[in-house]
Amino acid sequence: MGPHPAVAAIRLAVRRVLHDILNDHQTSGAHSGRQAPGERERTGRTAERPPSPLVLVACSGGADSMALASALAFEAPRLGIRAGGVTVDHGLQPGSGLRADEVALRLRGLGLGPVDRVAVTVGREGGPEAAARDARYAALDAAAERHGATAVLLGHTRDDQAETVLLGLARGSGIRSLSGMAAVSGAGGRYRRPFLHLDRQTARKACMVQSLPVWDDPHNADPAYTRSRLRHEGLPALEKALGKGVVEALARTAQLSRDDADALDAWAGQAEAAVRDAAGLLECAKLYALPPAVRRRILRRAAIEAGAPAGSLFARHIEEVDRLITGWRGQGAINLPGRVVAQRQGGRLVIRQG
Amino acid sequence: MGPHPAVAAIRLAVRRVLHDILNDHQTSGAHSGRQAPGERERTGRTAERPPSPLVLVACSGGADSMALASALAFEAPRLGIRAGGVTVDHGLQPGSGLRADEVALRLRGLGLGPVDRVAVTVGREGGPEAAARDARYAALDAAAERHGATAVLLGHTRDDQAETVLLGLARGSGIRSLSGMAAVSGAGGRYRRPFLHLDRQTARKACMVQSLPVWDDPHNADPAYTRSRLRHEGLPALEKALGKGVVEALARTAQLSRDDADALDAWAGQAEAAVRDAAGLLECAKLYALPPAVRRRILRRAAIEAGAPAGSLFARHIEEVDRLITGWRGQGAINLPGRVVAQRQGGRLVIRQG
Repeated sequence: MGPHPAVAAIRLAVRRVLHDILNDHQTSGAHSGRQAPGERERTGRTAERPPSPLVLVACSGGADSMALASALAFEAPRLGIRAGGVTVDHGLQPGSGLRADEVALRLRGLGLGPVDRVAVTVGREGGPEAAARDARYAALDAAAERHGATAVLLGHTRDDQAETVLLGLARGSGIRSLSGMAAVSGAGGRYRRPFLHLDRQTARKACMVQSLPVWDDPHNADPAYTRSRLRHEGLPALEKALGKGVVEALARTAQLSRDDADALDAWAGQAEAAVRDAAGLLECAKLYALPPAVRRRILRRAAIEAGAPAGSLFARHIEEVDRLITGWRGQGAINLPGRVVAQRQGGRLVIRQG
Repeated sequence: MGPHPAVAAIRLAVRRVLHDILNDHQTSGAHSGRQAPGERERTGRTAERPPSPLVLVACSGGADSMALASALAFEAPRLGIRAGGVTVDHGLQPGSGLRADEVALRLRGLGLGPVDRVAVTVGREGGPEAAARDARYAALDAAAERHGATAVLLGHTRDDQAETVLLGLARGSGIRSLSGMAAVSGAGGRYRRPFLHLDRQTARKACMVQSLPVWDDPHNADPAYTRSRLRHEGLPALEKALGKGVVEALARTAQLSRDDADALDAWAGQAEAAVRDAAGLLECAKLYALPPAVRRRILRRAAIEAGAPAGSLFARHIEEVDRLITGWRGQGAINLPGRVVAQRQGGRLVIRQG
């Protein structure tokens, strides 16, 4: 008799990603990465057997990442991969340090090693959720560097993805913000999300049948957080209205939007060179001839290049600049965030910091 | 003292669209359209004054379309435009004929003319909502042809648009289904939606302050209809979780998605010619080199061209065909809806009805 279907599902998801990691590792050459002191000589002596790659799991102690840790601990040795873990103490709740110790113990109990337990200081920039995320990724990056890890696995599920798409939808800033989280992200594709097509219920079930204790972050149920309200009220109401397939549809929308946004960004990148004159200025007549979707992406890139902060540059800003091209009636300079000014001069669009 | 802000808002929205209609009318030439018998001679005699265009409003008697009718009746004469109306009796509820008579009377009371009251027979194809819509547009098309109308105004609001985006999101079939309703649609841009940026509340308020009686379609509150559930439960819950700007964000998403989808469709249209060999077959190597978003659109077009019904062709079908290009390991023919078969043969992708 095989494992419980939920356990089989989480293991299969992890196995697939480990195969990808091995392929990428071999393609890119095992030696091209960061090497520990003395590594060069050692690999020199055993040229046929590169050192086995190390994969870390980022684990909060919640059901999703505990399930991920258990699947990694099971699958990695079978593929000759070393498996470790990192847990981050954000220091935002009383007793968080103790809990981090506990999670680290559990990870070691699964047979993972090395296991790091890292304390971070969460700043305030961009709000509490963004600040915590920034601190967490900085700690994970540092742990990966420290141990020369090939990849860091993250436990985000399809449900997280659906929530991320809805959060992006609420910004109304276009398809890039609908594309959710990538299966592979970070410098050199360091971060991998094996559970992006798996539902939260499966991860929880896998923990249960494996008797893994899990920790429910009280933040996840706190209605002060947008994501929590979305999870416990917004999405269930949407499912009631639209049917059970909503989470899956949102996750699929993320993937399709990501591919579309990538293609359009590539197009805009190529088109940008063609619409600049010898002096590097944007020619209005050539911009006019482009599809609006491509033209607005070029305008956005140009504004950011001139110093406008991407996060403060909204669709309405770009639309106003676009009217210098499509609705020219002698309007004056347009002020953009970051003291950037856009104006039309002699058939050219000039965007620069004023 | 000017009109109430709500009335000013609906009139401004209609005035803008009437200006667009006049511009298009003059650009395309007032004489190129369908002419009534004897029209040619008459216009021949008064060459400097083309016949004033006729604009119809489609009116159910609900708040949105009654507000639209009142604004059209006010603005059209000021721009030298003739304004008429059409109300459609779907025959789906007891007393619907009587109500249609009443709506026609109210339209005439606003000074509109001609006013048509058309009874239709609603079929079953595509479900009750789609069948009613098909019958309605067929009747509106016929009315426009009958009277030689330049445009037909529809009362869809920003709230309708937000609902349409969420309905598209639930399909999970990509950004085209997120692009909602177009401001201009139909053959020759016949249909115009002046209220697409206006909220439902404004339309309702405008009826109230103008003492226009409105009719609330019981279907709109019937939880048996997906759109009704979305309106009364789904969207309010989403607003509670994400904040009041959700409807506006969804409407903006529609516009951005539409532009993006148009650009990618144009790209796919151009790329398709370049990836076909002399015999017109799709070359796998050339398809492989395209961005996934463009490649999948070409595959979708090819499947539809081969006879697959667009409505039954889902993202997962296209993904499976795509794996013949990106994950070739000798897999067999793939069955698509409409007895269409896709297979790889000698580096070519063959898609045809089997």
